[in-house]
Amino acid sequence: MPAAQISDLNVFLEENHTRIREELFEFLRIPSVSAQPIHNADTARAADWLKSSMVKAGLEAAIHTTPGHPIVMGEWRGSPGSPTVLVYGHYDVQPAEPLELWTSPPFEPAVRDGNIFARGSVDDKGQLFLHVKAIEAHLAARGKLPVNVIILAEGEEEVGSAHLEQFIRENKELLACDAVVISDSAMFAPGQPSILSSLRGLAYFEITVQGPTHDLHSGSYGGAVVNPAMALARILATMHDATGHVAIEGFYDSVREWEPEIRQQMRTLPFDEESFRGDTGAPELGGEEGFTTLERLWSRPTCEVNGLLSGYTGDGAKTVLPAKAMAKVSCRLVPDQMPAEIENLMAAHVARVAPHGVTTTVKHLHGGRPWRAKLDGKLYDAARTALATAFDKEAVVVGEGGSIPVVGDFERILGTPVLLVGFGLPGENAHAPDEWISEENFRVGMRAMAAFWDAYGES
Amino acid sequence: MPAAQISDLNVFLEENHTRIREELFEFLRIPSVSAQPIHNADTARAADWLKSSMVKAGLEAAIHTTPGHPIVMGEWRGSPGSPTVLVYGHYDVQPAEPLELWTSPPFEPAVRDGNIFARGSVDDKGQLFLHVKAIEAHLAARGKLPVNVIILAEGEEEVGSAHLEQFIRENKELLACDAVVISDSAMFAPGQPSILSSLRGLAYFEITVQGPTHDLHSGSYGGAVVNPAMALARILATMHDATGHVAIEGFYDSVREWEPEIRQQMRTLPFDEESFRGDTGAPELGGEEGFTTLERLWSRPTCEVNGLLSGYTGDGAKTVLPAKAMAKVSCRLVPDQMPAEIENLMAAHVARVAPHGVTTTVKHLHGGRPWRAKLDGKLYDAARTALATAFDKEAVVVGEGGSIPVVGDFERILGTPVLLVGFGLPGENAHAPDEWISEENFRVGMRAMAAFWDAYGES
Repeated sequence: MPAAQISDLNVFLEENHTRIREELFEFLRIPSVSAQPIHNADTARAADWLKSSMVKAGLEAAIHTTPGHPIVMGEWRGSPGSPTVLVYGHYDVQPAEPLELWTSPPFEPAVRDGNIFARGSVDDKGQLFLHVKAIEAHLAARGKLPVNVIILAEGEEEVGSAHLEQFIRENKELLACDAVVISDSAMFAPGQPSILSSLRGLAYFEITVQGPTHDLHSGSYGGAVVNPAMALARILATMHDATGHVAIEGFYDSVREWEPEIRQQMRTLPFDEESFRGDTGAPELGGEEGFTTLERLWSRPTCEVNGLLSGYTGDGAKTVLPAKAMAKVSCRLVPDQMPAEIENLMAAHVARVAPHGVTTTVKHLHGGRPWRAKLDGKLYDAARTALATAFDKEAVVVGEGGSIPVVGDFERILGTPVLLVGFGLPGENAHAPDEWISEENFRVGMRAMAAFWDAYGES
Repeated sequence: MPAAQISDLNVFLEENHTRIREELFEFLRIPSVSAQPIHNADTARAADWLKSSMVKAGLEAAIHTTPGHPIVMGEWRGSPGSPTVLVYGHYDVQPAEPLELWTSPPFEPAVRDGNIFARGSVDDKGQLFLHVKAIEAHLAARGKLPVNVIILAEGEEEVGSAHLEQFIRENKELLACDAVVISDSAMFAPGQPSILSSLRGLAYFEITVQGPTHDLHSGSYGGAVVNPAMALARILATMHDATGHVAIEGFYDSVREWEPEIRQQMRTLPFDEESFRGDTGAPELGGEEGFTTLERLWSRPTCEVNGLLSGYTGDGAKTVLPAKAMAKVSCRLVPDQMPAEIENLMAAHVARVAPHGVTTTVKHLHGGRPWRAKLDGKLYDAARTALATAFDKEAVVVGEGGSIPVVGDFERILGTPVLLVGFGLPGENAHAPDEWISEENFRVGMRAMAAFWDAYGES
């Protein structure tokens, strides 16, 4: 493509950068925590804000209510006969707790060392917003885009996208497109553009162990009443064997082996294990025997405890035999494990290992399927071209341990390929205190996606 | 003893019952939660209130400060040449959480079905206060007691009596006495007066497992970083074997076998297992194989989880790999296990079983020695006489699974026998929501202890 065409878009983005950044900060200031009902009004406000922002960019935009949080849609269909591309993102964010571990307040963006710190900065408001601005660049600098675009932004990604699949099904014609583009992931390293080839799925559970109906004095009752917190610990301890393999019967039955060349590529990427460990602060890394760290993250399923609560957890010592104990437990899944299948296996496992003297319940809070890309065709060619142009470096193909359940839905319902191109970075603290996005990545990401529309339109 | 002498005390107690009950309610309304610094002023207020109450009863009273919560002492030494008896109790209470499980507010006494519901009602304000009133009955009705009395009430029993032992040591002469009487336990059944022959000790720990330095995204890191909550569960699961025996190496080495006749008596008491289970609400009872429920409670040591906390425990699903996990774990001890010995064994055990990839700490929060009574002599004879008089039934000898660490201190430092005579009841919810004391037991308990002074003085 002519250099002049790229340049006009970049000039627009640079000249407007102060305004764009301030708009991003406005977006980040809205605490749209979808999991917490106390923030429902904020989440609705974030949807309104996003709609206005799309209109400002030159899109037609509308808010679609759902039984949960609304979906915001923007459209520009000024290239009849040209392909249509759907950009998906989400404007909801994870809870910010524990608040005391944030260096600056989670909903007041702060820039330190070239990074923008705020809840949602990278997951996913920053990455969604850079698409809005890349489109704005085209419409402002040239009055048009080389393709038709749809932006679809949901407000329930962090709570399992409960109403998105139904929305896509019920609006198949409105959403009909030739490709889907999603930016909700990380690059392999700073300056190294990356295309995501796989995502893990998720099956998230709340396991409750109930012993007595009320808390008891641990002296007066201890030893004769089964302790539900100890019972829970014993149940959780059965979920892995001594080599770190998940010991839930049947857990690996549906795991599809990875192609030897993909597994080989995972083993040869210049992965800095010590830097990764340093980012976590853990004394050493660990996991399933027989796999490298990247394989563990990208190609292997897991079973994790996300939360534990039982009895007395405040100051000092309370000699209580707790009435109940709760664990949040989730499994990351790889193709072709299905959440419903894992739900059945988990329920059967807990029922099998639960001690006498307590009752257990396993509640499936939500799930999402794992995914692998087919890496060929026009969509991926355009992405490689745009990323190489903006970053001046060829993209690598990577995996991702996290979940974006909607990716599989788009493929199945709309029948289109999905491109995952992310601008986060390792250590970005998504879902943790001090979440950040690199300001440079936000900037170059806008240029890359502006270039993408040219590359895809011309191909 | 002449019936007239008992009767005048009982008449006084009955005629003043409305006032006595209202005074008890005042005492119960003060939230003297020693474990929670937010209640420090309340705990101090409870000490002041108790001192005034002792003065009103006719004792000389004083508050002795300690580095923690104060000690309240009342004295009546109007019988020179007669024996001196020390009554011990505590005016501090357990935390009331979880508040939402109380039928009525924990610090607003409410009477339902003949029971007084309030935090501290039975443990131990109610039982301490009935001694104050039994003494008041003597001093009001007769102007004197047949013996000299000391009341010693501490404010740190629920947090390990950190400063009491030192106070007793430093005030050995002031506290010199011929016997110690404590009411901080339960009767075997309604209407069945009981003398306590044994107490379990305690070693209370906080175990912390630290993995990463901050919470991580369970998708981006899960599988390659050791999950501290899962590690904690695996550590806790090693603390018992499959038969319910504690599997900490050396744990039973110091356990002294019980005399066959005591063990036989434990097995023949008319214990209603189903009623005990019903009080707990647990689906079934359980514990160490080879022992009855009463043996498990009275004669066997335990290892219990009192609290668990890790990661996200709020509404919905947060896919976090927690930075750390915490368990409050306590062992109930039997003679001759020592808290310091168990502390060493626990620390060694956790260090031995802790997985790689996390760091563990074991903090010993507090401990108390177990105890067994010698059941003969003047003190026990007087108790049996007084209880038979007040309850019109012979007392039985029972054990108790809870801990009163100071009992051993009194024996060792003051060189006196200790009598434990309690007026609680099974199911009284000490340390749990809806704690209660039977109003009848409070009433007859006052009469019994009033009779005790006569019986002891005359013997």
